[in-house]
Amino acid sequence: MPDFTLSELAARVGGEVVGDPDARVDGVRPLEDAGPEHLSFYHNRRYLQAALASRAGVLLLAEPESFAGRTLLVCREPYAALAELLELFHPTPHPPAGVHPSAVVAADAEIGDGATVGALTFIGARARVGARAVVGEGCVVGAGAAIGEDTLLHPRVVIEADCRVGARCILHAGVVIGSDGYGFATVEGVHRKVPQVGIVVVEDDVELGANVCVDRATLGETRIGRGSKVDNLVQIAHNVQVGAHSLLVAQVGISGSTRLGHHVIMAGQSGASGHVTLGDGTIVTAKAGIMEDTPPGAMVSGFPARPQREFLRAMANLYQLEGLRRRVRALERALARLGRDDD
Amino acid sequence: MPDFTLSELAARVGGEVVGDPDARVDGVRPLEDAGPEHLSFYHNRRYLQAALASRAGVLLLAEPESFAGRTLLVCREPYAALAELLELFHPTPHPPAGVHPSAVVAADAEIGDGATVGALTFIGARARVGARAVVGEGCVVGAGAAIGEDTLLHPRVVIEADCRVGARCILHAGVVIGSDGYGFATVEGVHRKVPQVGIVVVEDDVELGANVCVDRATLGETRIGRGSKVDNLVQIAHNVQVGAHSLLVAQVGISGSTRLGHHVIMAGQSGASGHVTLGDGTIVTAKAGIMEDTPPGAMVSGFPARPQREFLRAMANLYQLEGLRRRVRALERALARLGRDDD
Amino acid sequence: MPDFTLSELAARVGGEVVGDPDARVDGVRPLEDAGPEHLSFYHNRRYLQAALASRAGVLLLAEPESFAGRTLLVCREPYAALAELLELFHPTPHPPAGVHPSAVVAADAEIGDGATVGALTFIGARARVGARAVVGEGCVVGAGAAIGEDTLLHPRVVIEADCRVGARCILHAGVVIGSDGYGFATVEGVHRKVPQVGIVVVEDDVELGANVCVDRATLGETRIGRGSKVDNLVQIAHNVQVGAHSLLVAQVGISGSTRLGHHVIMAGQSGASGHVTLGDGTIVTAKAGIMEDTPPGAMVSGFPARPQREFLRAMANLYQLEGLRRRVRALERALARLGRDDD
Repeated sequence: MPDFTLSELAARVGGEVVGDPDARVDGVRPLEDAGPEHLSFYHNRRYLQAALASRAGVLLLAEPESFAGRTLLVCREPYAALAELLELFHPTPHPPAGVHPSAVVAADAEIGDGATVGALTFIGARARVGARAVVGEGCVVGAGAAIGEDTLLHPRVVIEADCRVGARCILHAGVVIGSDGYGFATVEGVHRKVPQVGIVVVEDDVELGANVCVDRATLGETRIGRGSKVDNLVQIAHNVQVGAHSLLVAQVGISGSTRLGHHVIMAGQSGASGHVTLGDGTIVTAKAGIMEDTPPGAMVSGFPARPQREFLRAMANLYQLEGLRRRVRALERALARLGRDDD
Repeated sequence: MPDFTLSELAARVGGEVVGDPDARVDGVRPLEDAGPEHLSFYHNRRYLQAALASRAGVLLLAEPESFAGRTLLVCREPYAALAELLELFHPTPHPPAGVHPSAVVAADAEIGDGATVGALTFIGARARVGARAVVGEGCVVGAGAAIGEDTLLHPRVVIEADCRVGARCILHAGVVIGSDGYGFATVEGVHRKVPQVGIVVVEDDVELGANVCVDRATLGETRIGRGSKVDNLVQIAHNVQVGAHSLLVAQVGISGSTRLGHHVIMAGQSGASGHVTLGDGTIVTAKAGIMEDTPPGAMVSGFPARPQREFLRAMANLYQLEGLRRRVRALERALARLGRDDD
Repeated sequence: MPDFTLSELAARVGGEVVGDPDARVDGVRPLEDAGPEHLSFYHNRRYLQAALASRAGVLLLAEPESFAGRTLLVCREPYAALAELLELFHPTPHPPAGVHPSAVVAADAEIGDGATVGALTFIGARARVGARAVVGEGCVVGAGAAIGEDTLLHPRVVIEADCRVGARCILHAGVVIGSDGYGFATVEGVHRKVPQVGIVVVEDDVELGANVCVDRATLGETRIGRGSKVDNLVQIAHNVQVGAHSLLVAQVGISGSTRLGHHVIMAGQSGASGHVTLGDGTIVTAKAGIMEDTPPGAMVSGFPARPQREFLRAMANLYQLEGLRRRVRALERALARLGRDDD
């Protein structure tokens, strides 16, 4: 692993050094594992004691107040600086270009310059793999599907026929793009399949977590906007439109034809019903269930989801109901007494 | 793509033409993308403006009232008619029959007439693949497992040993059939595995979404009834019995030994605890959690689930608690005043 | 299948025979399918009628009271006895050792004595597969990853680079170990990936269900403690620490850096937010959402989670609000009448 002086690191991330600028750093470690030769990272007040107790030679942080006498790298955006430093210390070499001999690649598939196709992977007819893209082991890329430049498919990803993944995307193991949407016409109690003849479009710079599912549209496109990041086990139904730079945390579910604006955040295990629109910047808190449109910048909670303030007040009131019941009982008794007094 | 006259389409789906019966239609498109040569589809009042604004040459719909002057295909069941028309415009050719040379097929496996085994797929000892069935790329069909006639396995499906999938089923990518049920005997704090020696039976005409998991029974069978349709990322535990023609929407979870009648609907992210029975036609709304048996035709919501009307009234009351608290406070003050007046 | 006398079975599991000790048993069946030659199992009062009606020759149970005249195998821990008997009647032979010719194994990977590498599986550079371990068909074991002795990987499991799985573990189909944690530094509305350079450590005797996802740590380790059992479709985020002998039921989600003590139980579809600590023996009921630390032995419910007793009381109060509203209305009327009487 490379090593650097603290001043080199500070120059790299645009930070300020407190202490010895010539201190050598040869790696980044968690607070509890770091030694004098390591840099560690403090960003959350829950870990203040751990940071104070850490043996790390250098601490990367935003607020140096509690750390008198320590060697520090102070940054306004320490988490972004951490990203930069981890790329520096852990450069990821591109795997050797070329198609592994055990892969099965259709004769008319196009494999871009410098692209890698891993062992035991299948690339179907007319599929295109962009320049420098990496398709990991055991993937299946269907007929006519397209994968953009510099995109990385981890092992065992499936891209069904004709779907398109943009440039610089990362798809984790087990992702399924382009499974059929859940559409059935029920006549006399029998569910007849509505063919799902649309596609999925994943725009540039999207990351999709392990075992994420994105269904193809009935007609037209299901679309994940550029720069959006999707965590593991998320379900995105047919015809959904996710705007740019949105964040969908683990186990979120979005029902058919729902539209998310840009910079929407849906926290873990939340969901949205079908045919609703979430305004730009909407924040859906954990486990909430959206049943109606939300205005831009809304923050909603609960099921059916309400503005978060109303939800929190309702929850507080709910857990004070015991007290309210007692007060009503006291009123009833007082009134009964008054009635008797009147006699 | 084939093209048809409107009268040909109307004859096909048993609909009524409003306007020119000789209008030519060469494809089905979403409302916003359709042009004069396309048919589009209007079925949900949310999209009335989009339908009115659509450039589609023909609109398929049930209620023609708002569409004077437009060329229409009026059907009582427009969604079923859409299914029929999409099959007409998008016929799915059967892939070439035969076993791909990269597949690994046990010598004593039986591959039916006209069946297809895709690239890099494994078929175990004594397994049977029915006539005209398609096993996609990268699948694993365990020893003794059976797949019915005309069934389609998308890529990367796993059927574990001895499990049985019926005829005309569709299993999407990443489905796992026959993983071990979650059964442990805990003695002195250590969880000992209870072997799961049963199987899974998927009856005819079932569709299972991407990354669905169905566990094998401890003893006997876990069973998915004929015609049931299961959305992505659903979990079905050991010994569960799902009745015929049921609908399990994305991310539903059903715990061990629970029984669903026929035509049960569980909406997205809902769940059922173990050892309960859901009567025929039960509807479980989104995110609900069933803890007790439900009678036939029940509609239940919330957690623990209650009849939907009670749930909705409770939610309304919950968000009006602030008002109730104020009324109690007013009563307390009024009574205190009365008390003082009495003095 | 082997057959045994009842007295042999009783000796094996340390149980007591009621009835003929020489009764022959040639298999274990569910109550409704068992015949005179079978043993069946009664453990849950919901199934008392089924047990009384069962044609099973022998019933394994803990409480013989209701079963006068039947042949019984009485055990204090009947579920553990069932585990023992199922192993006896269904011994699972180790598949033949060796590497399937269709597998792709790096030259410098180490395959232990007696280990099996299934068809169409990939084993990367420097990876180690322990003695007698079984790697099923279609798996991907990344560079530098390690799998312990006697561990079983079902088909299509992915172990990403450098992650470690202990001895005697069982990983079901579709498991993903070591996908990137969900970490992004957002600067001016753009989410920059924070490299995830840690690993996952799965300790000994862990079982992970189908399509489970465990993310690698940002730095350091995500860790699943020994003896813990994880059901299907569970999400475990980066830097999470799960203590020993914990149980995570289907579709549970645990957010980043959260720590679970030992013997924690999280029921189905429950979740925990990030950076919280669940004390030893905490029980989280179904669908609950943990937002704060819990003390050892806590039992919590609802969202945000509260002690279960408070949650149940709050739910009871919620569904009686209609009555409380009526009482307040009655008080208001009575007081209005009193006011008028005073005039």
